[in-house]
This record gives sequence, structure tokens and C-alpha cells, in this order.
Amino acid sequence: MPHIDQYRDRIADAVRTVRATTPLSGSITNFVTIDFVANAQLAAGGSAAMVYLPDEGGALGTMSGSFYVNVGTLLPSHEETMCRTATVLCERKTPWVLDPVGIGLGAVRGRILAHMKDNPPTIIRCNASEAIALADAWGLEGDYATGGVKGVDSTDDVDTARSAAIALARHIRGAVAVSGPVDLVTDGTLVAHSRGGSPLMEKVTGFGCALGGVVAVYAACADPFAAALAGSAAFNCAATRAAAQTDAPASFKVAFIDELYRATPADIAENPLVIEGA
Amino acid sequence: MPHIDQYRDRIADAVRTVRATTPLSGSITNFVTIDFVANAQLAAGGSAAMVYLPDEGGALGTMSGSFYVNVGTLLPSHEETMCRTATVLCERKTPWVLDPVGIGLGAVRGRILAHMKDNPPTIIRCNASEAIALADAWGLEGDYATGGVKGVDSTDDVDTARSAAIALARHIRGAVAVSGPVDLVTDGTLVAHSRGGSPLMEKVTGFGCALGGVVAVYAACADPFAAALAGSAAFNCAATRAAAQTDAPASFKVAFIDELYRATPADIAENPLVIEGA
Amino acid sequence: MPHIDQYRDRIADAVRTVRATTPLSGSITNFVTIDFVANAQLAAGGSAAMVYLPDEGGALGTMSGSFYVNVGTLLPSHEETMCRTATVLCERKTPWVLDPVGIGLGAVRGRILAHMKDNPPTIIRCNASEAIALADAWGLEGDYATGGVKGVDSTDDVDTARSAAIALARHIRGAVAVSGPVDLVTDGTLVAHSRGGSPLMEKVTGFGCALGGVVAVYAACADPFAAALAGSAAFNCAATRAAAQTDAPASFKVAFIDELYRATPADIAENPLVIEGA
Repeated sequence: MPHIDQYRDRIADAVRTVRATTPLSGSITNFVTIDFVANAQLAAGGSAAMVYLPDEGGALGTMSGSFYVNVGTLLPSHEETMCRTATVLCERKTPWVLDPVGIGLGAVRGRILAHMKDNPPTIIRCNASEAIALADAWGLEGDYATGGVKGVDSTDDVDTARSAAIALARHIRGAVAVSGPVDLVTDGTLVAHSRGGSPLMEKVTGFGCALGGVVAVYAACADPFAAALAGSAAFNCAATRAAAQTDAPASFKVAFIDELYRATPADIAENPLVIEGA
Repeated sequence: MPHIDQYRDRIADAVRTVRATTPLSGSITNFVTIDFVANAQLAAGGSAAMVYLPDEGGALGTMSGSFYVNVGTLLPSHEETMCRTATVLCERKTPWVLDPVGIGLGAVRGRILAHMKDNPPTIIRCNASEAIALADAWGLEGDYATGGVKGVDSTDDVDTARSAAIALARHIRGAVAVSGPVDLVTDGTLVAHSRGGSPLMEKVTGFGCALGGVVAVYAACADPFAAALAGSAAFNCAATRAAAQTDAPASFKVAFIDELYRATPADIAENPLVIEGA
Repeated sequence: MPHIDQYRDRIADAVRTVRATTPLSGSITNFVTIDFVANAQLAAGGSAAMVYLPDEGGALGTMSGSFYVNVGTLLPSHEETMCRTATVLCERKTPWVLDPVGIGLGAVRGRILAHMKDNPPTIIRCNASEAIALADAWGLEGDYATGGVKGVDSTDDVDTARSAAIALARHIRGAVAVSGPVDLVTDGTLVAHSRGGSPLMEKVTGFGCALGGVVAVYAACADPFAAALAGSAAFNCAATRAAAQTDAPASFKVAFIDELYRATPADIAENPLVIEGA
């Protein structure tokens, strides 16, 4: 197993390369947190653009170094847009991140996520309950007992989703980042835990979505596992610093974006991280 | 008439119970202020989720302890979603809040609001002009002269809407919260005035929407009148404190959400309040 | 050529009149930055309302003193809404601002922008690459070599777009504001450069959109050239002041809206400005 310093170097490289090249990451994302996603992507050093029309997802994907698809707040036209975009991204081998938010709610979301089993993302960003639900929906082998999804919130701990996350990572041949008080990131072979952050992250809407968007930005400049590690490390680093400045959610969100912008490649690479075999 | 302290106790209970139980309040709400609604709901101690598809409104309503429907920024699919959701919520007796923003604009909004006359919300949150326009649209008895709606803003004082609010509360057998420099809240029998806040609330988009969302959160844990009183008191308390910290709108919004999060049940219950017979 | 002080006086007049009359500016705008647009319009002293349905654009336009149309994040229903609204606004001679964001992406956006060649806005707000692309799409005479649009970001300097902006302004018989490190504003006869601002404006999503919304507010109370000059001056003034308070994007955005609200007519009129013949 490679030494942990190799991963810290790859995290620092991803952060540095994004800042140096400002890669465009297109998104199809929900309306609740779209502003947070875009501003987090910009703070991390990327360039953001969002679309919804069926003929625009693939077109934007073709222009983008990476892409982010979040299945929240669906409208009728989203099904065609998301499915066509996933197909284009896979054909072009453009790295992309899926956030299966709201899995289990409604028939359209179920059909979209089923399409993505065969047109898989490079990275999945989700919470523990969503990881378990997606592994189950895709019929991946394993035992995924879950406390269930409550609206868009997890009722499970990230380590409860460990086997589901590993199965998902192996199926997509990429990486899975499961967000929680401690984040779990796996490529199907290794399992990393990224520490830091703040309980205030659950008192602001969209930290998970914004992380998905930022992981997409890093994925334009790094392999899936390094991109997912870099995103989790950047968020935990910035949130730890923001939490040192305030005790309430709105000023915390402002401070978080500021610190995401300020954090150096070394700051992010040094965030607490442990990696072990899957 | 019950002593005012009884209502202060019920307000404190609502705030405390929400913080202890983190109830899920689903929403179908406008795109302008959707982030503010969600973040205010989280700051108040609730859990937020937003949907738009026709088959998802009722499904989310079934998972939710309460619900919020705001008829701003309609899309073609909203009519079916909102009408089906209202029907489900009424059948299940799930408490829900209607915000009739933009009433009078367009045929779709008119049809949605007409459907809600017979599938009524538990609580209506609106400004004075909207209360008068809705009482008029629903053909409720009374004399509702109005200065008219200007876009989404009121041209009327809350007490101008007193008889309209009472008529609406009696029709829905719930509560009506009319926002203004002083807020008026009625259950059709009693009329309360809640004081505090700041003129800066009119210089930030979405304070009315966010209040509707927070009243919905409280309605998961309290009767309609107590929920509406708690929401108005919480907003006036937090806005008064925020206005002591800044003189400009964006920093005021940040401080407001922070103070909504920090305010204790006692802080909110002690906000200036008078109650009289209708 | 009129003395520069005449333009400073017209800028101050626009700012003062908006604050005194709170004009309603309706919008059809993208979902990414809709909250920023509305809050910037309110901070500048206007009133904001957003719609999307085909029968609501024209209806809101009829109630509005001016209007803002931004072609970002299109949905299938936007084409009919935007085209009908443009027709109504032109028939009624209501001043309105077009932001051709994303030009070149997708067939729907192309058809909408083609419709607006013959139903022209009063003012166009864009970046350099978009000005060149729109002049080219409309077949206006000139030589518009461009580095191209990267997602929603410009790859060109504003002065590269000088001839395109002049051609556009002459075609619409209004004004064009091209945003960049220095802003270029032209009415087809005169070319102004407005200085100030901060590189942090590119690290926050929506400064261009918010400027379009605020120019629309001013256009309710001033001729197109004065409105575009006032908007650019207000943004550069507020951003210069915000940049003196922080070095990071989220706190910068908060400070910017605060300073847009605080800036006096004289502050805005005195922002660095030069005007020359086209």
C-alpha cells in the first residue's frame, strides 16, 4: 500500500493544478443550493456553468473538463437532460460526479439513477443512507441495512455505508465519497477517512452539494480517488477554520467559502487523513 | 380570553420541541428565495427538502411533519404538483402553510389558489395586500378595499387587512399571519400583534418566504395559531438583534440567520406581543 | 461632446430617482444567481419580481417600469415566455435589459436571441466574448474576432469588443455595457470606460447578472446610456469599497451588497469615468 504522503502529494497537486488552470466544470444541479455549488467551485479555483435543457447538458459536457450531476429538485425535462448528458460524458470519458440526493423519492429519480448504473459516473458523492440506497437500487452484492433516508438527510453513520461504498466504487471503477461527521472515501481498494469540519455544516443547506461540485472541479485535474480526497480535505480544512471564527450558521457559511478560497495546497493536503485497505 | 403568558408558553414549547425533534418540513417554493427558506428552516431547528414534480409533492408530504407551499416563480408543471400536494396534505391532515405571493398575476396562479379554497392550508402567510386579494378571490364576506399588489410587495398596512385575515382564518379553520412593520396573526377569534424587526427586512428578498417556511417548521410541533405566533416572534426577535449589529442588508441577512439560530425559546417567547379579541 | 460632468449629474439623478421612487423591475433570469439579482436590485433602491410562465412575463412587464431578461439556465417553457415578453416590452416601449449569457450553447438560446434582434432590448449587458458573439449572430457589420466563450466566462478584453458593442448599440438604438476589469459602456456614439471594482468579482458567481438587474432598475428612471453608466459606476464604487474590507469572495459579496446600499448618488457619480467619441 502506498505511503500516506503519496496521497497528500496528489491532493496538493490537484488543488494547485485547479488554481493554475481554472477548469470549467458544468453542472446540472438542484435549485436549492445552486448558488452555493457555483460559489464553492469558484472559490476552489474552478469555473462554473449550469444548464437544464436536453440538448445543452451534453453540449456543456463537451466543453467541460469535468461535470457534476445532482438529482435534487427535478423538473419534467430533467430526465431526458440527465440521461443524455450521462451518456455523452461516458462516451467522451469526461470525469463526472453524481449526487443521488433524494434517492427513493418519485419515479423519475429512480429511472434516472437506473440509467446511470450503465452510464456510470466517475465519482459518487452522497451521505451514508444514500450510498446504501444506491447500492441496493443497483442490485450490487452486499448487506446494506439502513436506517433510511429522512427527506434529504442521512440516518446512518458513514461506516455503516462502508461495504455499500466499496461496492459502488468497484461498480463504477471510480471513487465514492460518503459525507458525515467523518468522511469516508474509497476507490474500492482503499478506504480513507477525512476528519475535521464542524457540526454547523448540517445547519446550512448544501454542504454536500457544494462538495460534489468541488470534487468535480478537482476531477478535471486528478484521478477520481485523488479528486474525492482533495474535495473532502478542502471542505474539512475550510470548515474547521470557519468554525473557529463563529458559532452560527450564516456567518459560518460565509467564513467557509472564504477559507476554501484562502486555503493553500499544503493546508488542504495536511488535513487529518488516514488510509487503509478496503 | 386566555392570559398572554399562556401564549408565550406555547411559543416557547413550539421552539423547544422543534429543536429537540428536527421535524422535516417539505416545500414547493419559489426559486428566488429557496436557499433562504431552507437555511431559515435549518436555523430554526427543522429539516428542509424541496421538490417540484407532480408525483413528488404528495410523496414528500407523506414523509413530512408539515409542509410549505409558495406560489412564486411558477413553471408549467407546478399547477399539477401544487394541486395534488394540497389534496394529499388535506387528506392526511398534515399541517401546511400557503404563501399566495404574486396573487393576481397570471391564470395558473389563479387556478392553483382557487383549488386551495377547497383544499385549504392550515396557515396562510402573506402581506396585507395579498390577504385582501385572497379573501376577495375566495369570495369571503367582508369589505376588502386594497391599494393593490405591486409586483410581490404590499401597498397596504397590516391592519387594513384585519377583516380579510379574520375571514381567511375562519374559512381555513386555522391561522393567518400578515407580515408588515408590525405583524398581525389571527386564528379568526383572537388577533395578535407581534412587534420588532427592522426596515432592513424590506431591503432583502425573501423574509416573507423564509417566515412561511419557519412557520411550517413550527406547525409540525404546535397548533396553527401558536406556530404562526412563534414564527413571527422568532423573526422579529432575530431581526431586532441583527439590526443592532449592522445598517446594511447583506450583513443584516447573515446576522438574522445567525440570531434565528441562537435565539432561545425564552428569547422568542418574550418578544413584544399583544393579543385581543377579533 | 457634452462635458463629463453632465454624465456624472445624470448618473446621480438616476441613483437618486430610483431611491425616491422604488421602481418595480420584473425579471426572467437564471436560477444560479436569481437571489443575487433580486438583492442587488433591492440594495440599489428598486423593487424586484421574477416570473417564468408564458402568460406572466408580459403581464409583469406591463406592471414594471423596466425589465431584465437573462437567458441563462433555460427550461423548455422559457422560449415562449422570453419571446412573448420581449414583444410586449417593445410594443409598450418599456425599457429592458438583455443579458445574452451562454450565447452559442444550444438551439433554444439561439432562437430566443434571434427573436430579440427584431424585438430589441434597450440595453445589452454582457462580457466581451458575448458582445462579439451576439454582434456576429445578429449579422451586424464589423470584424469581431474572438477568443470564444468558455462556459459563461469571457476570454476577451472589453476593448476587443469595442466595435461589436458599438454595432450592437446602434442596432438596438440603446446602450451596451461590456463588463471586464474595466467596463466599457457605449450608446453607439460615445464610448465610456468605468474603472474600479476588484478581481474578486470573478470569484463570485453572478456579478454580471446582478449588474444587469441593477441597470434595469436604473433604466426605469433614466435613458439607456445613463442607466448603463450608473449601473457600472455603482458596481465599481461598491466593489472597490468592499475589496478594502476583505480579501476573500463570500465576505466580499456581503460587503459589496452592503456598499451598494450605502453608496450615495454623489459617491456613485464620482466613480472614475472617462468618455470619448465612438
